[in-house]
Amino acid sequence: MQQVQVGKDGRLRHLLTLEGLSRDMIHKILDNASSFLNVSDRQIKKVPLLRGRSVFNLFFEDSTRTRTTFEIAATRLSADVVNLNISTSSTRKGESLLDTIDNLQAMAADLFVVRHSQSGTAHLIAQHVGEHVHVVNAGDGRHAHPTQGLLDMYTIRHFKKDFTQLSVAIVGDITHSRVARSDIHALTTLGVPDVRVVGPLTLLPGGLEQLGVTLYTDMRAALKDVDVVIMLRLQNERMNGALLPSAQEYFRAWGLTREKLALAKPDAIVMHPGPMNRGVEIESAVADGPQAVILQQVTFGIAVRMAVMSMLAAG
Amino acid sequence: MQQVQVGKDGRLRHLLTLEGLSRDMIHKILDNASSFLNVSDRQIKKVPLLRGRSVFNLFFEDSTRTRTTFEIAATRLSADVVNLNISTSSTRKGESLLDTIDNLQAMAADLFVVRHSQSGTAHLIAQHVGEHVHVVNAGDGRHAHPTQGLLDMYTIRHFKKDFTQLSVAIVGDITHSRVARSDIHALTTLGVPDVRVVGPLTLLPGGLEQLGVTLYTDMRAALKDVDVVIMLRLQNERMNGALLPSAQEYFRAWGLTREKLALAKPDAIVMHPGPMNRGVEIESAVADGPQAVILQQVTFGIAVRMAVMSMLAAG
Amino acid sequence: MQQVQVGKDGRLRHLLTLEGLSRDMIHKILDNASSFLNVSDRQIKKVPLLRGRSVFNLFFEDSTRTRTTFEIAATRLSADVVNLNISTSSTRKGESLLDTIDNLQAMAADLFVVRHSQSGTAHLIAQHVGEHVHVVNAGDGRHAHPTQGLLDMYTIRHFKKDFTQLSVAIVGDITHSRVARSDIHALTTLGVPDVRVVGPLTLLPGGLEQLGVTLYTDMRAALKDVDVVIMLRLQNERMNGALLPSAQEYFRAWGLTREKLALAKPDAIVMHPGPMNRGVEIESAVADGPQAVILQQVTFGIAVRMAVMSMLAAG
Repeated sequence: MQQVQVGKDGRLRHLLTLEGLSRDMIHKILDNASSFLNVSDRQIKKVPLLRGRSVFNLFFEDSTRTRTTFEIAATRLSADVVNLNISTSSTRKGESLLDTIDNLQAMAADLFVVRHSQSGTAHLIAQHVGEHVHVVNAGDGRHAHPTQGLLDMYTIRHFKKDFTQLSVAIVGDITHSRVARSDIHALTTLGVPDVRVVGPLTLLPGGLEQLGVTLYTDMRAALKDVDVVIMLRLQNERMNGALLPSAQEYFRAWGLTREKLALAKPDAIVMHPGPMNRGVEIESAVADGPQAVILQQVTFGIAVRMAVMSMLAAG
Repeated sequence: MQQVQVGKDGRLRHLLTLEGLSRDMIHKILDNASSFLNVSDRQIKKVPLLRGRSVFNLFFEDSTRTRTTFEIAATRLSADVVNLNISTSSTRKGESLLDTIDNLQAMAADLFVVRHSQSGTAHLIAQHVGEHVHVVNAGDGRHAHPTQGLLDMYTIRHFKKDFTQLSVAIVGDITHSRVARSDIHALTTLGVPDVRVVGPLTLLPGGLEQLGVTLYTDMRAALKDVDVVIMLRLQNERMNGALLPSAQEYFRAWGLTREKLALAKPDAIVMHPGPMNRGVEIESAVADGPQAVILQQVTFGIAVRMAVMSMLAAG
Repeated sequence: MQQVQVGKDGRLRHLLTLEGLSRDMIHKILDNASSFLNVSDRQIKKVPLLRGRSVFNLFFEDSTRTRTTFEIAATRLSADVVNLNISTSSTRKGESLLDTIDNLQAMAADLFVVRHSQSGTAHLIAQHVGEHVHVVNAGDGRHAHPTQGLLDMYTIRHFKKDFTQLSVAIVGDITHSRVARSDIHALTTLGVPDVRVVGPLTLLPGGLEQLGVTLYTDMRAALKDVDVVIMLRLQNERMNGALLPSAQEYFRAWGLTREKLALAKPDAIVMHPGPMNRGVEIESAVADGPQAVILQQVTFGIAVRMAVMSMLAAG
């Protein structure tokens, strides 16, 4: 996938996955994001980097929140944004995915932001489009959510500076989480020596150890002395399914409470990709507490997406 | 609520309700609107007052018409507008209202335009947001619709000049109307000596007299010699409910016909917030007649919303 | 209709139908489109011709694809675009179509792009609006889809230069196709001597010969030595209806295969308005083959819509 994602000249052509992306490239994106962070602080929150470029938000899976972050990031780069909620569109008329892409490309699209319930869709599109068209994966099935992974790395770097001394715990439904996958790839690439993955056995996939992470089923053990806690969202559809007893029992075992958080380092930060299920995977007192950096993640997320989109489509 | 709405420096921080807003402030907004009126007459209908600002249209209740007026007003102020129809969004995923607001705020929102079926929502949000973020109530439950109230005042001032000599009748379903509530507060504040409220007994709430208005159940008596007739929209769901006999009978008793309008002053103006139910609350001959100023209300509404948004978020 | 569409000064006021539009006017629009074609090739794909103008996409019938082409064209002309999907809007509240138009007009609309399932809607609106407001028909019932017709003419002129020597076959469900109707009017106006219309008898309307076209029911005969093949989309709802046996049998008789295409001139071009039903009206090998110009149609479509909108609303 790296040949698709990074050109022979070493430049980023698409952002599809963090798997295999080099440490240098990740830092370069984060450095870039840092320069965009202050744009959102100005009264006139705009830079002209993508002026006159056409960005298409192709959301085959509904996600107002993620779509909004990309729309705002593109708008602050001065791009023209078209939102396409494709579930209600021509795929309903039986047009194939790649015919849709060909059509939008023929309208002189510069950048596609793609969200799809099927793993590999963004990659398929990236292989298909012409040289001047770029693709950002905004979440594909259980596979990857690279901008979320990058904003998580931005957040950790911002608060912890050095990745090479850290212990990081990722807690929750690992099996179904593209966020967990993207975070694991980025953390190991960036040299985090101790990545812990913890959740109910039924939601821990096999083969994770090969990625260089340690599996835990005991949350208290997993949180012991960590610097960073990344909580995952428990999807509603899992809550009453066969894999889990109930939301209440989930909270008792895997919910992040003040008491469990006290096992981590005193200056540990708490992250969550949102939207949160308060009282399910996280206690409100923690979500709103002094260690939570959940809203900073959102702010950094805009800057990271501005960085990615401008690296792909500007100049 | 005034402490929330108007800052200690006397500047408008949010627009939540017309209740308690001072006569001076209302006139200041209308004066401002007057200066924006000609922007929409130009070929290039834009001023740069909100350039680079992020305006979020948060519509928890569907209203394409009202959302469009705010979108146009913000766009003509050169703001970047994001439309969020939240019923289909993350609140469905179980995220709380204030978590949604916190998230959007973390994306560096400048202004929220909020429509919600529950009274008090805009107020709740205004109390929650940071100092640099502003809220406009675009209709909350039965409580208030202040920009509609203001555009109604603009219309009356435009056609009648002096508020202190007027008789104004508001006709229809007073109980469920946030428009009626906002109009009553504004009219009494602006010194209108004779505000009449008329409708079927089942749709007249108690306690209105304390607001300084006179209740009528006889429409002919209520229209006698008035200068302004404000017709309210009869919600479809009322038409065949327990509170009313039928749309036909409603029209017979409360519908504005040419014959009933003849009881008002010869130069009386007829207003309606739209969308109209022709043949239910208003006869077509009146809606399209020489005394109707219903479309001017729409035009003034854009200018009033530009005035409010620029007073809140510019500079 | 021409009095509505073209002003006394000979300028285009609305684009409602190609029926009766003069050869000169069609060529003028195509010439104009040609000058816009390179705008989409630039990095900054924008010209300021409609800066500050308000364009309303009024889609009473869902069509993301067509709506997107108009949105992009208007945005590249620097207009402000508001998308209104009216099926979910105030017409649901019982407001009449013309009340909706009056309201949007009162917001200082410059241009309406109208799609409606009922024939004649765009015309009705054009007759209703004020002098400074313009209407583009983006498809009305079975009646007309003039911008599709114009982009088809642009495509033919681009590849074949001279209309007066051509044989053109239009294949498929002629009865229900507004595209066929618009193409037939344009082709005959532009002097194409041999326009052939071919499809199952149940989908060929009566009276077509009076438009100057020849009817065929044998597709092989119809394709013999033609220069241009225009395939129509088979609507899903026809596929299993009373008018047709099945999609498979339709493909066998009316689907464009390489073998059938071989009967046309060797340099014949293949067109389709999209979205395609591969394996129903067209074989994939043809759709993706060297004679297909289907994606060029899309590209030309943006330029044609920019031309039409700027001719109507600029200056």
